[in-house]
Amino acid sequence: MKKIAILGSTGSIGTQTLDVVRGNNDIQVLGISAGRNILKLEEQVREFHPRLVAVWDEQAAKDLQIRIADLPVEVVSGMDGLLQLATMDETDILVTAVVGMIGIRPTMEAICAGKDIALANKETLVTAGHLIMPLAKEKGVQILPVDSEHSAIFQAIHGENKKEIHKLLITASGGPFRGRKREDLQQVTVADTLKHPNWVMGQKITVDSATLVNKGLEVMEARWLFDMDLDHIQVVVQPQSIIHSMVEFKDGAVMAQLGTPDMRLPIQYALYYPERRYLDGERLDFHKLRQITFEEPDMDTFLGLPMAIQAAQAGGSMPTVFNAANELAVKLFLQEKIRFLDIYQIIGQSMGRHKVIRHPDLDQILDVEKETYQWIESRW
Amino acid sequence: MKKIAILGSTGSIGTQTLDVVRGNNDIQVLGISAGRNILKLEEQVREFHPRLVAVWDEQAAKDLQIRIADLPVEVVSGMDGLLQLATMDETDILVTAVVGMIGIRPTMEAICAGKDIALANKETLVTAGHLIMPLAKEKGVQILPVDSEHSAIFQAIHGENKKEIHKLLITASGGPFRGRKREDLQQVTVADTLKHPNWVMGQKITVDSATLVNKGLEVMEARWLFDMDLDHIQVVVQPQSIIHSMVEFKDGAVMAQLGTPDMRLPIQYALYYPERRYLDGERLDFHKLRQITFEEPDMDTFLGLPMAIQAAQAGGSMPTVFNAANELAVKLFLQEKIRFLDIYQIIGQSMGRHKVIRHPDLDQILDVEKETYQWIESRW
Repeated sequence: MKKIAILGSTGSIGTQTLDVVRGNNDIQVLGISAGRNILKLEEQVREFHPRLVAVWDEQAAKDLQIRIADLPVEVVSGMDGLLQLATMDETDILVTAVVGMIGIRPTMEAICAGKDIALANKETLVTAGHLIMPLAKEKGVQILPVDSEHSAIFQAIHGENKKEIHKLLITASGGPFRGRKREDLQQVTVADTLKHPNWVMGQKITVDSATLVNKGLEVMEARWLFDMDLDHIQVVVQPQSIIHSMVEFKDGAVMAQLGTPDMRLPIQYALYYPERRYLDGERLDFHKLRQITFEEPDMDTFLGLPMAIQAAQAGGSMPTVFNAANELAVKLFLQEKIRFLDIYQIIGQSMGRHKVIRHPDLDQILDVEKETYQWIESRW
Repeated sequence: MKKIAILGSTGSIGTQTLDVVRGNNDIQVLGISAGRNILKLEEQVREFHPRLVAVWDEQAAKDLQIRIADLPVEVVSGMDGLLQLATMDETDILVTAVVGMIGIRPTMEAICAGKDIALANKETLVTAGHLIMPLAKEKGVQILPVDSEHSAIFQAIHGENKKEIHKLLITASGGPFRGRKREDLQQVTVADTLKHPNWVMGQKITVDSATLVNKGLEVMEARWLFDMDLDHIQVVVQPQSIIHSMVEFKDGAVMAQLGTPDMRLPIQYALYYPERRYLDGERLDFHKLRQITFEEPDMDTFLGLPMAIQAAQAGGSMPTVFNAANELAVKLFLQEKIRFLDIYQIIGQSMGRHKVIRHPDLDQILDVEKETYQWIESRW
């Protein structure tokens, strides 16, 4: 019996993780958590019978407690609650499916407690990869990537010698605005931006997909996850999202993972790694597929990618600025307070004014985030 | 130091194997062999300093002996010579790059002598897979595939649990006549047939590529090599020959190996498996590649594939008939004694008249080959 806790069980990855649990009879969910969506949490408690539920919002936690008073489940709240969830005695794996910097501290505590991490939270490696990876190594825990690109790479290098990897090839759909030029993006709306060609995802990540910030974040994560130089990570636009990513080895062989757009596959792969389990769902049919096309990413138009690479090259606290500025800019864009291209403006200016801290600890990272937020909020 | 012998060192795979040897400083070639091309053999002896050279033709062996009398190398001939080469004391791997049934007996002897086999000879598994695979298992030797499709599959399943494989997807270029219909093939010439779109190979295999017999033989080989049911092997036409083959696992993930058309890669992979070494040569450039397309094979026009599947389903000695009939038919076609579509006629009629021997031993297999030859020679 595999025992897991889920940080962020009501979001897109969290609910799909529970879908994977439904399809297997040997995973037990010992803990779940959410920000404040207690209706969904109550449903999940009644279906999966966890022992512990962590709710970020204190009032929501109290409300949930009343609603599920009939059940033998403990409800906790705040950061202490998340840390309790992350370090529960009997769990093998913590699924970090929460969005934002809030995921980092529980992830580090879980690593210290010896839990393997099924990692869907991007901020963890983007901002604190230099802390997380050595810690995981020290504690002998596995960081199992959950998003489709890193999972594809993880699958492609399984059984291979890491020293024989020459290059990671991260594929990108190119987003809804692929093929457009800068001037075409002046007036695009939120509704335009949310039309992702292949994947159904949360709003934030869908905007990040349109700006290519998401791909930039993935490059930053890949760097830490697979211990690769930025020079050996290449982004390839593959609009049909059939090839989920690839690895070129030093003999020139390229190993790729292909599949339908179904996040349950990387989730299940992370939970059972290195075992593969049957997963219901559509299969690729190469007799009907017709074609896979490739393009070079348009780095002059979609600045999210070159800016991310610039932030990663600067290193230290700069990726935190990149990430925080983007997070707030996307929020402002979704509220229709700024235009699409202003997202790049905000990221660029935030990075321009920041003086890099070389090897920031977690408190410094969180301070840099806060300071970046405050500066942006004071101007936009 | 890795020590190898090459059965068929002057052919396409043999010379490319020696190219791989040139690129690495820790492989020693202890033995080489050829049918009768002693000029090429002499060159190879002078460059690679093997201890033993086997020449099939007895007179050619004598001639070679005189040409290289200045060197400390033993020259042997006939089947005894091939068997001596296959079982040399110090070799680790026998590369079986010879074409035809002649490769089977030396391969079996090499397995009995505990040599790993880098297998490029198709006939070995097509006609004697039921003998070879159990023997290899019993003797604890590895059968390392050398052709690009099986090597791609071998790479894709490396590190995976064989029980988790759902399907093998063997890619095919479709050959020079892809897209044409039966009536278009009535009058095609030898020259038309030898224009392979992507690979430069020997004449026989190029014709087999045009008829899809080659793909049929690969399906038969894959069946033995990877212990898969015929129902779980699918052929996908991929005209650019960039995806060298794929494997679908039971979770729906498809792992593929991609690369440029360079046989040195599967050869080197087989020689150093599971290690990957640097290999000079062109790399795939996904920013310039543009597209990979897929099609269903046209089984109504290119009967080589459905006939091979039928022969494999019949089992026993039927694959030998399929292979022998094709071999002779291709020879007649290359001599312009028959037309392209007659190849299917000859295979079909040869199979139609054959009564299957259930579990033929090697002598029975060779008898069936001879008998098939004689019958065809008496009619065409």
